[in-house]
Amino acid sequence: MSKDQEEPSTPTAYLASIGTALPGDPVDNATLAKVLGVNEEWIEVFIGTKTRHFARDLATGEIRFSLADLCARAAEKALAAPGVDPSDIDFIVLGTATPDTLMPATVNDVADQLGLDQVPTFQLQSGCAGAVQALSLAQTMIASGQYRTGLVIGGDVCSKHLDVQRDLSDVAASDLVNFVLFGDGAGAAVLTHQPVGARVAVRHVLNRFTGLGRKPGQVIEWFGLADRHDDRQALTEDYKAIEEGVPVMAVEILWELLGELDWDADQLDYLLPPQLSGRMTRLITEELGLPTAREVSCVAETGNNGNALPFLQIEKLLEQMAGGEKALAVAVESSKWIKAGFALEKI
Amino acid sequence: MSKDQEEPSTPTAYLASIGTALPGDPVDNATLAKVLGVNEEWIEVFIGTKTRHFARDLATGEIRFSLADLCARAAEKALAAPGVDPSDIDFIVLGTATPDTLMPATVNDVADQLGLDQVPTFQLQSGCAGAVQALSLAQTMIASGQYRTGLVIGGDVCSKHLDVQRDLSDVAASDLVNFVLFGDGAGAAVLTHQPVGARVAVRHVLNRFTGLGRKPGQVIEWFGLADRHDDRQALTEDYKAIEEGVPVMAVEILWELLGELDWDADQLDYLLPPQLSGRMTRLITEELGLPTAREVSCVAETGNNGNALPFLQIEKLLEQMAGGEKALAVAVESSKWIKAGFALEKI
Repeated sequence: MSKDQEEPSTPTAYLASIGTALPGDPVDNATLAKVLGVNEEWIEVFIGTKTRHFARDLATGEIRFSLADLCARAAEKALAAPGVDPSDIDFIVLGTATPDTLMPATVNDVADQLGLDQVPTFQLQSGCAGAVQALSLAQTMIASGQYRTGLVIGGDVCSKHLDVQRDLSDVAASDLVNFVLFGDGAGAAVLTHQPVGARVAVRHVLNRFTGLGRKPGQVIEWFGLADRHDDRQALTEDYKAIEEGVPVMAVEILWELLGELDWDADQLDYLLPPQLSGRMTRLITEELGLPTAREVSCVAETGNNGNALPFLQIEKLLEQMAGGEKALAVAVESSKWIKAGFALEKI
Repeated sequence: MSKDQEEPSTPTAYLASIGTALPGDPVDNATLAKVLGVNEEWIEVFIGTKTRHFARDLATGEIRFSLADLCARAAEKALAAPGVDPSDIDFIVLGTATPDTLMPATVNDVADQLGLDQVPTFQLQSGCAGAVQALSLAQTMIASGQYRTGLVIGGDVCSKHLDVQRDLSDVAASDLVNFVLFGDGAGAAVLTHQPVGARVAVRHVLNRFTGLGRKPGQVIEWFGLADRHDDRQALTEDYKAIEEGVPVMAVEILWELLGELDWDADQLDYLLPPQLSGRMTRLITEELGLPTAREVSCVAETGNNGNALPFLQIEKLLEQMAGGEKALAVAVESSKWIKAGFALEKI
């Protein structure tokens, strides 16, 4: 569909800098197990995630950081990086599944905290693919020639759904997953029309809905004033569908991206695999079978904090990446089966 | 900021077709007044809106149409129009403030209902400016040369916040506004890289955050499972700030757009003013002072159904618009003060 398949000379965009923000101290499995009244070893084995960070105080339920707070902190770091001038920012795109409010869009509160004004702001409602969608839009906006420098943000405060006061002793294991899988966080990157700062070219972005006729793997509801939700679950997952579907899709995405780019698998220096949980990411990475590419993952330490994940991965990547090196990221949104990914090359 | 200010030759996009959907029969003020236990004349005078449509059954509170249902119906009409081939659609952008769920994004359920697959989908979280933001992104995506034909959708089911079982006798007038201002609906348009169908050129799209340091005029909250919200309001408005701020911003937007386009005010054949309520729209239209431009409004009949409004206005516009005629739309999002608007010209 996309015309750049025919015209690889289409101007690309460059990643100039990155910043991330994780709220508070890491919460380990012993602490989480105690608060939720679940088995620590079960978290260790079944989820494989060691720590995560919460915007909500685990003891009191009090909200310490809004999504806007986390996004603004991450963006401040990206905007303070060498080679980046905040006054160059001519658009902002934020991807999230958990906005602070429905209105205003959180991206506008972030702009306000950053002191940015008179720029177009966009907020994408999306799960795990949101950060990639934001990157995709920013790349297209810069390619259009209408914009030059964009602030791309992704973040989630999943603990908005974490009811620490709830008694979990009667909760089925399939639902317990939702209480131990997630974390909170945010990330941001500055994208530019010419290489500055980190000088990483965005070679390709994949973002495609493939959910026609497929039941959602994950549903997150929100409640309005008119809803009586005491007996409902806000978050429901078809964990089996996710476990079966995501590894297959990840392999398809990998090979599609390599084909688009005309890159060989053994040319890849880094692989940024999907970050569902420590355990699932291990399984998927094995499935992808790229022994020469170094894996860049974070979920075992950060928990699944949704749209923050790709930025946390890119931050780790940039610490290692040398000129001429290639990285490929694969992401799957199981909510309605979105294939996503991107390719980066340091120039 | 945007480069097309310097290069007016940047390829534009064309509006090929439009479709809209309103749920159920119109609900008049007598009916609404009776259900809510408020004064009919007060609605008439203070809001100035005569009818609206609700996705929720007013008697039982039962949800008859989801946002996805309404968006798919509107999109089906736009896709069935002469000159449009649904298989050409290579992206979908939906703007809404009231998604059915946080995940999946509603745009993916719409794609599923429409039988569209393997395309990028984007959902913008936004209030009154969302439809314009969606139009802006679609125009940019087409201008980038990476995409050719997009489905742009806007809609809202505001009645998700309308608690018909609630006793409103103790509610302050400032809060009552929220129960009588809104309606539900959706609209869709097909945008193309070359003129087909309706052959209306999108000459310019304005979308700019101007809320730095300004308190939000409107806040809509959502509730997660961990929230105890029995004593809270989901929707709060600073009606005074809106009443004072929006007309001033509308005039600024009008003159900024005319300046960008190098159009004279008396060259305008049609004006699509902001659609807050029947009364506010009348006041703003007077303030804009364009006696030669025909007003195209719908809010008095449809209620404020958010992101559906610009599509409902465009649908009415296309019924009248002749070759060579010019139309200008002005929209203000009071949540965090977004200036928005667009210019259309039939070729």
